[in-house]
Amino acid sequence: MGNQIIAVDLGGTQIRTARYDLELNLLQRENTLTEAYLGLQSTIERMKVYIRKAMPASAEDVLGIGISSPGPLNPFAGVIVAPPNLPGWLDVPLRDIMESEFSLPVHIGNDANVAALAEASKGAAQGCRHVVYITVSTGIGAGIICDGKLLLGRDGLAAEFGHIPIVLENGTVSSVELEAAGPAIARRVKRSIEEGAKSKVMDIVDGDLKRIDARAVGMAAAAGDELGIAQLAYAGRIIGLGIVSIMHLFNPEVIVIGGGVSKTGDLLFAPMREAVRAQVMDEAYTENLRIEQSALGDDVALIGAAALVATDGGNLDISELDRRF
Amino acid sequence: MGNQIIAVDLGGTQIRTARYDLELNLLQRENTLTEAYLGLQSTIERMKVYIRKAMPASAEDVLGIGISSPGPLNPFAGVIVAPPNLPGWLDVPLRDIMESEFSLPVHIGNDANVAALAEASKGAAQGCRHVVYITVSTGIGAGIICDGKLLLGRDGLAAEFGHIPIVLENGTVSSVELEAAGPAIARRVKRSIEEGAKSKVMDIVDGDLKRIDARAVGMAAAAGDELGIAQLAYAGRIIGLGIVSIMHLFNPEVIVIGGGVSKTGDLLFAPMREAVRAQVMDEAYTENLRIEQSALGDDVALIGAAALVATDGGNLDISELDRRF
Repeated sequence: MGNQIIAVDLGGTQIRTARYDLELNLLQRENTLTEAYLGLQSTIERMKVYIRKAMPASAEDVLGIGISSPGPLNPFAGVIVAPPNLPGWLDVPLRDIMESEFSLPVHIGNDANVAALAEASKGAAQGCRHVVYITVSTGIGAGIICDGKLLLGRDGLAAEFGHIPIVLENGTVSSVELEAAGPAIARRVKRSIEEGAKSKVMDIVDGDLKRIDARAVGMAAAAGDELGIAQLAYAGRIIGLGIVSIMHLFNPEVIVIGGGVSKTGDLLFAPMREAVRAQVMDEAYTENLRIEQSALGDDVALIGAAALVATDGGNLDISELDRRF
Repeated sequence: MGNQIIAVDLGGTQIRTARYDLELNLLQRENTLTEAYLGLQSTIERMKVYIRKAMPASAEDVLGIGISSPGPLNPFAGVIVAPPNLPGWLDVPLRDIMESEFSLPVHIGNDANVAALAEASKGAAQGCRHVVYITVSTGIGAGIICDGKLLLGRDGLAAEFGHIPIVLENGTVSSVELEAAGPAIARRVKRSIEEGAKSKVMDIVDGDLKRIDARAVGMAAAAGDELGIAQLAYAGRIIGLGIVSIMHLFNPEVIVIGGGVSKTGDLLFAPMREAVRAQVMDEAYTENLRIEQSALGDDVALIGAAALVATDGGNLDISELDRRF
């Protein structure tokens, strides 16, 4: 049996490939642009080229290939369903394509799901058996480990934290993602400025309203901009409400928060923690719970793709990761 | 190893005890009043007497004793923490008490949690591996089975469906339980009547406002009472919103709904299903999902207590239940 793992992080912008040993130590790493606009076939061919670059001298040394992809996808069938940031990808049987190309076992996982495996094996959740990973970026996703096993659900569609419904004060039903992801934060800041609010974010984008994104809002807020601070606080409160649902339903020991928007740090985390404190039903839920910022950086899904292979597609208990080490 | 199981359902009103074989066929059944007002010691002594009545001729034939109790409780330590409907019960080490009395393994589980095991072994969720059981009664609780295993969480506090936060239109944060459990339904009907609304529920309670409960509201609604219908519909919509969270987080194959309020049937279920249809993010979540009324009746927690023993306190996969059969 192979003692090395090939990992692929298929993203909307980049394709990262890497080779790891069974302890998930990085042996080799490559990356290239996805250039999804060149079409599905072009991206798949490029993936093959970069997987080949990551391969060791002998393919027999490879335990398997793990691929992280944006969802929705079917991890059981190995099919990419229709990711918003991979235009043209519709029901692509990526596992079968790569298995017949490389004659190796291939596992495919949702990027946020496999990130939870990465955090449990190499990140802030090491040694934990009840783990929630949340990514706050252009979307809001999650990966959940219940008593040592990756939660996939009946059809591999579980852990969609971003789609917890949130009732707004006007009575309409929104969701955590629609209220608190990067585009929502930017949208509310833009609207306020259009309605006459002053904000330092306009300096950051050289007065171009269209260029306002969550990153610009974060920079302005870090410089003391009141509008930016207020909108990150609103997003933090919404995420905090979602976390209360997660706490009461899963009773986890660690919640790790990653993704671009999480880099705003306390501007997001302080109101989030405050919402958790205010709404938790009993202190017993918070006594043994850590809420932490991810420290694995941009490679979290790449490490997760490797961990997916090490856990046989999430079928094995994460303690298997330690056993292999 | 024993081939019979002793099950206990410790409730606020009744204590039920029973003996089952390993296929969870009922061999013997007893029940008595809890009479919690007589004090903790009295209730525990009565439990012992009724467990003894349920025992077979030889204690060696008994695999273990399973006890279902209202929460909060610690299933790992076997301690009943402080159930609202068992006044005087505070951090009671019920497992140790019963193990030293009977020299048999004892497992203790939250009533809604073990009910999920009952549904998976004998009820509407037979043969399913991704199961959610929800009880709507004086409180709202749940039991969740993730890929064949009972979800307990870090401290055994998981599956508190009733404590999913719900933001109200006035901006305050409530919960599924505070909005949709029996007392909430009764409270809103009473308030409307106090404010001048007409309702058939007043005939049912002989004009005594204080006697209005969810059962009376259900009876009035079944007879066409508009106020009762509207308030059950509101509760159904709130539960439906909570179910959307559950669907997106767990992607279950079956959701079984029990408890007294669920007996109102379509008056609750139709608006609940409508909320699910309106808010689900993708039809993929509903395609393979059944939402059903529990058919196990009042013995659901008793059967669950037996199933708890058969799964070694929820540690074993539910497929073990079939293996034993």
